[in-house]
Amino acid sequence: MERGKFITLEGGEGAGKTTQAKRLADALNAIGIETVLTREPGGTFGAESIRKLVLDGTKDRWSGMTELLLMYAARLDHVEKLIKPALARGAWVISDRFADSSVAYQGYARGIGAERVKGVHDAVMGGFEPDLTILFDVDPVIAMKRVETRGEEISRFDAESMEFHNTLRAAFLDIADKNQDRIFVLDGGAKKDAVQTRLFFGVTQKFPDLAGKLAVDNA
Amino acid sequence: MERGKFITLEGGEGAGKTTQAKRLADALNAIGIETVLTREPGGTFGAESIRKLVLDGTKDRWSGMTELLLMYAARLDHVEKLIKPALARGAWVISDRFADSSVAYQGYARGIGAERVKGVHDAVMGGFEPDLTILFDVDPVIAMKRVETRGEEISRFDAESMEFHNTLRAAFLDIADKNQDRIFVLDGGAKKDAVQTRLFFGVTQKFPDLAGKLAVDNA
Repeated sequence: MERGKFITLEGGEGAGKTTQAKRLADALNAIGIETVLTREPGGTFGAESIRKLVLDGTKDRWSGMTELLLMYAARLDHVEKLIKPALARGAWVISDRFADSSVAYQGYARGIGAERVKGVHDAVMGGFEPDLTILFDVDPVIAMKRVETRGEEISRFDAESMEFHNTLRAAFLDIADKNQDRIFVLDGGAKKDAVQTRLFFGVTQKFPDLAGKLAVDNA
Repeated sequence: MERGKFITLEGGEGAGKTTQAKRLADALNAIGIETVLTREPGGTFGAESIRKLVLDGTKDRWSGMTELLLMYAARLDHVEKLIKPALARGAWVISDRFADSSVAYQGYARGIGAERVKGVHDAVMGGFEPDLTILFDVDPVIAMKRVETRGEEISRFDAESMEFHNTLRAAFLDIADKNQDRIFVLDGGAKKDAVQTRLFFGVTQKFPDLAGKLAVDNA
């Protein structure tokens, strides 16, 4: 059995990852490729219990590096118990967020530094990387409007945090620039169907066997 | 203010670390050196909550590497919030167990490998190491009798686990052999007062300013 492919979707809040992850999974399943859709942080029972520990309590309960270690404990549980077994049986796996989010959030935004995050990643994961990562790049002002539209609390997009979201956007673009072979950047600010077209183009470019097979459902 | 010294005590169950840690702390405090006595896993509120997550549930809830990451998250919280602040104000810190226990337990006994544990340690802790580590080496048969005497459950010393305790003992001795500048090995199988004499000798050898000052209370 040929090993499946591992695709991750990255980007800030309101970038449209979740909607597009589902569309891609549906399109792959429709052509007979078993596709598992998952997300971080979480994805397994153990990872969810660690996630709870990370999210509970006050904001400064954990230092950035302690938070990173807890995230990696959850990620390893997710990789060992869900992602790797699925890939081994030939299924494709799409994860809504993965390791690049740790580099962007803990490494850049919380100030640990990308190199230290990479040090932990390599020590824990060895050479395990996604085959393809799609970065949904979107202007935080547009992302804010989307989050507003879907009725979620808007507090994390207030004036103060807008700077944080701009930092995060620059971080993801920097990561993409340093990993051009793996990361495909698309304009997540476009309309859903246009984003989907770009997403499917990026996936087909990486996996040429899929050319002409992925149905873009723009109905 | 001169930075305090960081001393760790390592060894298997029933090696006498806890008793001797207290004697050493008392002797240092008696000559005017503020000494903080702590232990792993745990030592801070955050670390205790992670410890609970590690110990709860079934034996195979976590893989060895996930367990290691959780231990390091707890350790980092302990280092950042208790150990480093104490050292910075000039206090000495004695910890009943520290990083060598991870190398012995997860690295050797759970089979992750010492090198991978060291990879995580370096990525997380950078160059932070104890100034001195005392290894309490003791034959598991003697350790078993001690644990029995203090009325604890003896199940973890049954015939099957004796092999585990022998592996652990060999692991600690191997670690000591590779870190001779830092680790002082003593015979933890001797009587308490003899062990204390050897402990104080090891401490004085490392910190010559203490020569003739540490009172061995053999009353």
